[in-house]
Amino acid sequence: MIAYSNLDSSSAYSKLLSLAPKGKPFDFSVILDAARVRQAQIPIGAGLTYSWAAKAVDERILNELQALADEQELIGKYTQLLDGEFMNTGESRRVLHQLLRGRCGKAVVHEGRDLGAFYEHELERLGVFADKVHSGALRGTGGDAFTTVVQIGIGGSDLGPRALYLALENWADANGKRKMAGQFISNVDPDDAAQVMARIDPARTLFVLVSKSGVTQETLANELFVKARLLKAGLDPTKHMVAVTSETSPLARNPAYLDSFYIDDFIGGRYSSTSAVGGVILSLAFGKETFSEILRGAHEADLGALQKDIRKNAALLDALIGIWERNFLGYPTTAVLPYSQSLNRFPAHLQQLDMESNGKRVNRAGKTVAYATGPVVFGESGTNGQHSFYQLLHQGSDIVPLQFVGFQDSLRGEDVEVDGSSSQTKLKANLVAQIIAFAKGKKDANGNKEFPGGRPSSLIFGKSLTPAALGALLAHFENKVMFQGFAWNLNSFDQEGVQLGKLLTKQVLSGTSGDSAIEAYAALLKA
Amino acid sequence: MIAYSNLDSSSAYSKLLSLAPKGKPFDFSVILDAARVRQAQIPIGAGLTYSWAAKAVDERILNELQALADEQELIGKYTQLLDGEFMNTGESRRVLHQLLRGRCGKAVVHEGRDLGAFYEHELERLGVFADKVHSGALRGTGGDAFTTVVQIGIGGSDLGPRALYLALENWADANGKRKMAGQFISNVDPDDAAQVMARIDPARTLFVLVSKSGVTQETLANELFVKARLLKAGLDPTKHMVAVTSETSPLARNPAYLDSFYIDDFIGGRYSSTSAVGGVILSLAFGKETFSEILRGAHEADLGALQKDIRKNAALLDALIGIWERNFLGYPTTAVLPYSQSLNRFPAHLQQLDMESNGKRVNRAGKTVAYATGPVVFGESGTNGQHSFYQLLHQGSDIVPLQFVGFQDSLRGEDVEVDGSSSQTKLKANLVAQIIAFAKGKKDANGNKEFPGGRPSSLIFGKSLTPAALGALLAHFENKVMFQGFAWNLNSFDQEGVQLGKLLTKQVLSGTSGDSAIEAYAALLKA
Repeated sequence: MIAYSNLDSSSAYSKLLSLAPKGKPFDFSVILDAARVRQAQIPIGAGLTYSWAAKAVDERILNELQALADEQELIGKYTQLLDGEFMNTGESRRVLHQLLRGRCGKAVVHEGRDLGAFYEHELERLGVFADKVHSGALRGTGGDAFTTVVQIGIGGSDLGPRALYLALENWADANGKRKMAGQFISNVDPDDAAQVMARIDPARTLFVLVSKSGVTQETLANELFVKARLLKAGLDPTKHMVAVTSETSPLARNPAYLDSFYIDDFIGGRYSSTSAVGGVILSLAFGKETFSEILRGAHEADLGALQKDIRKNAALLDALIGIWERNFLGYPTTAVLPYSQSLNRFPAHLQQLDMESNGKRVNRAGKTVAYATGPVVFGESGTNGQHSFYQLLHQGSDIVPLQFVGFQDSLRGEDVEVDGSSSQTKLKANLVAQIIAFAKGKKDANGNKEFPGGRPSSLIFGKSLTPAALGALLAHFENKVMFQGFAWNLNSFDQEGVQLGKLLTKQVLSGTSGDSAIEAYAALLKA
Repeated sequence: MIAYSNLDSSSAYSKLLSLAPKGKPFDFSVILDAARVRQAQIPIGAGLTYSWAAKAVDERILNELQALADEQELIGKYTQLLDGEFMNTGESRRVLHQLLRGRCGKAVVHEGRDLGAFYEHELERLGVFADKVHSGALRGTGGDAFTTVVQIGIGGSDLGPRALYLALENWADANGKRKMAGQFISNVDPDDAAQVMARIDPARTLFVLVSKSGVTQETLANELFVKARLLKAGLDPTKHMVAVTSETSPLARNPAYLDSFYIDDFIGGRYSSTSAVGGVILSLAFGKETFSEILRGAHEADLGALQKDIRKNAALLDALIGIWERNFLGYPTTAVLPYSQSLNRFPAHLQQLDMESNGKRVNRAGKTVAYATGPVVFGESGTNGQHSFYQLLHQGSDIVPLQFVGFQDSLRGEDVEVDGSSSQTKLKANLVAQIIAFAKGKKDANGNKEFPGGRPSSLIFGKSLTPAALGALLAHFENKVMFQGFAWNLNSFDQEGVQLGKLLTKQVLSGTSGDSAIEAYAALLKA
């Protein structure tokens, strides 16, 4: 029997509190040497490795974090989730995104249906569909081949798929895997859809409408925007649009769409990139084999996350170090810093993944907890960030824990040698330099030129950003966030915090709020 | 004589400390009504207005914030800056970005040169240059007209100009002001330049190389990358490239460039969007008149920021409320949430502007201060963010102060009516709903559905995002950050925090660090 209890009820919690230094940053000057860098590594899967050498932990702290993992039964809870228990308590739902990439636990049967087989079936169907588009068997109204795919979706139907699409463009172009161009429409701001429509040729474009519920306000408005434009161009919208939705939504089995692909209530929006939500556009843009490689990498990471030993489980250790930083060192934010331009929107996806999952002040039972939970997550690609907000990271009044990501090789293989080194080598040299600068700092008699150091970072690295590596990276963070939610005793799989805004929006639109402040604000904006 | 002293040495500081509620969020339920919304407004300039109705301040707090502004002589310091005093103390430099858009103070003469006249002269020159490109008087090597402009720059030479370029695309396309397409190369990751080059036709492209010092590692590497590609395409790089730099840089008056436009040491990178750094690409893409409109709006905001009364000075009040939130309420982060897809990269610019200016733990004299300074700044456009990290903003364990931006009208004027309202109306209704949801929250017996409220926000609003409004928006935040730096007694105009990374990068590249940890990290990445 697995017990769910608050972080601060564990005995490891009090021990960790007693280990936490008071106001003194960790001293990396001696501890961070070559031996530690070589030893402090854990494989993630698909050739990626997690390095925690520059994190502010020593053996005593790690031992207590292991005790916390054991006491909070984090692996037991992960196993429950994999086996299809109703982990999304408020909504009484299973949580099955790992099953999209392969089975790690028992077969999950829901109302007589094997859900693993269902997900696999949808994956197969979308692959067949993508092949038909690529072969020209499926064409637009006027007989034109489809050359562009536009995803219409918001939140999890946008951020994850968009981050993955952008991450793979360079790899696909360099490796002959590019099949179609991709675009995304997300915002209810009508300029978003209008701008994308101005960029594409609708006769050659396939639209992927993504909404699990089938009633997302922004997505339906953008669907009608696009349909009106297709009609105006003399095109038949039913020949230019597919849906990704749940079987119970109004979009399902609807003749308005060329085809429909299904997910179910057990795939949360922010965890849906490896379902048809990401699969349709990624398979159309880069081929179904590319999408399968993402799933393979993610599955490897999911399996690796089953290890009970925190020194062998990258996602688990990453989660626990995050809790050490949040609850014992008191750091309120985390920055994600990929040294790869291809990952430039990956931080925006992680921002949703993390902040929407664990940005909660009540536990699974709806009781307010007395400790800090999910941090603010932000980030930009390096080296760009170095010329922007790194000033604060190095010398600001607060400490921001860092997660670096870097690769040995660039993707396009085009480079230039300047001053004896290639750009890719410069990129990596900058990354290494930053880790050390943050950790060790630099003394200086001039306070303005002094770097306090003690600013912890981890590094995820690999040979190059292949689809499999990208899948492993995605799953690593999903699993990290899941373990943190377990440790904090949260339900990481609902998002009740979005409901009040939806309700008040309806009231603004219908003029029924009964709140004079709402009316006054609406008057300012002529809303 | 203006005195520079630490925030916590002021008597207003102790009074504000005594006014700060201990652990209890501000109660908006009664105070936030129509009368407060109508009254709590300050014009910014160019038709923009700052609303602070949903900020956690009352008359007593405002009075003390006014006292703080007076005691710290914030307007006196601004006037010193406008008059050309050496405000960038560490580097002994003036700070003159406001002068780029018009004079607000005395004429500034440096080594016999009137700098206002110098900036105006460069503005004129770049306008003439843009006209020549647009008229076809200047053409590429093979006689092709230039249709695309690519900016090569990083940090302030990228984030601000890019944010403004993206902000104006929809306005320009809808108003017949589009002259050329724009692209940006910033990262030293060679995939960045390679991807942009794969998208454009070099024969029809003009490159704008931007580096004040002329020695920025990333920018020079990308310049050589691009030049090699131009040569390979049989084009003469000197006919396809202009430089924006300082007169003392190796790029100045260099026959390698078609022309060069100048800034000087008194224009900081993150404050340079209204100089030639932003002016060349924006004038080429949208016409010199459009760039002049940005300057006009910025100048209006600069003049408005001279008011001593905090109830009449939007930038000053915004700055002081930020200090109230940071130093007295203890909030470590701030989110910027523009309800306009055109502003989707504006938060990335503000992140640099704010965090690089005030992310400092030593004062102007190099002494460590005992109070928190610049917050972590992050954000995404709404409504997208609502489906992402707003969960944490509504129900997370920490409070994040918010800055909303919204407009009455969309830019392209294309819209669709769904369920009785247009998309633009839905966009605005969502914005109003969020302000109220954050401020007032909602009681619920189910903790998971309860919204604590007390989460403060401001709103900047206007009719539409014209070039002048964009200029005023930009200047508003520049001036806000400046006032905060004065109040915290920081030098907001240098960035010593980037130096250590540069030094260590050189050591990694030359293998001379003498640090075994650096060598071990370099081995992991094969750097």
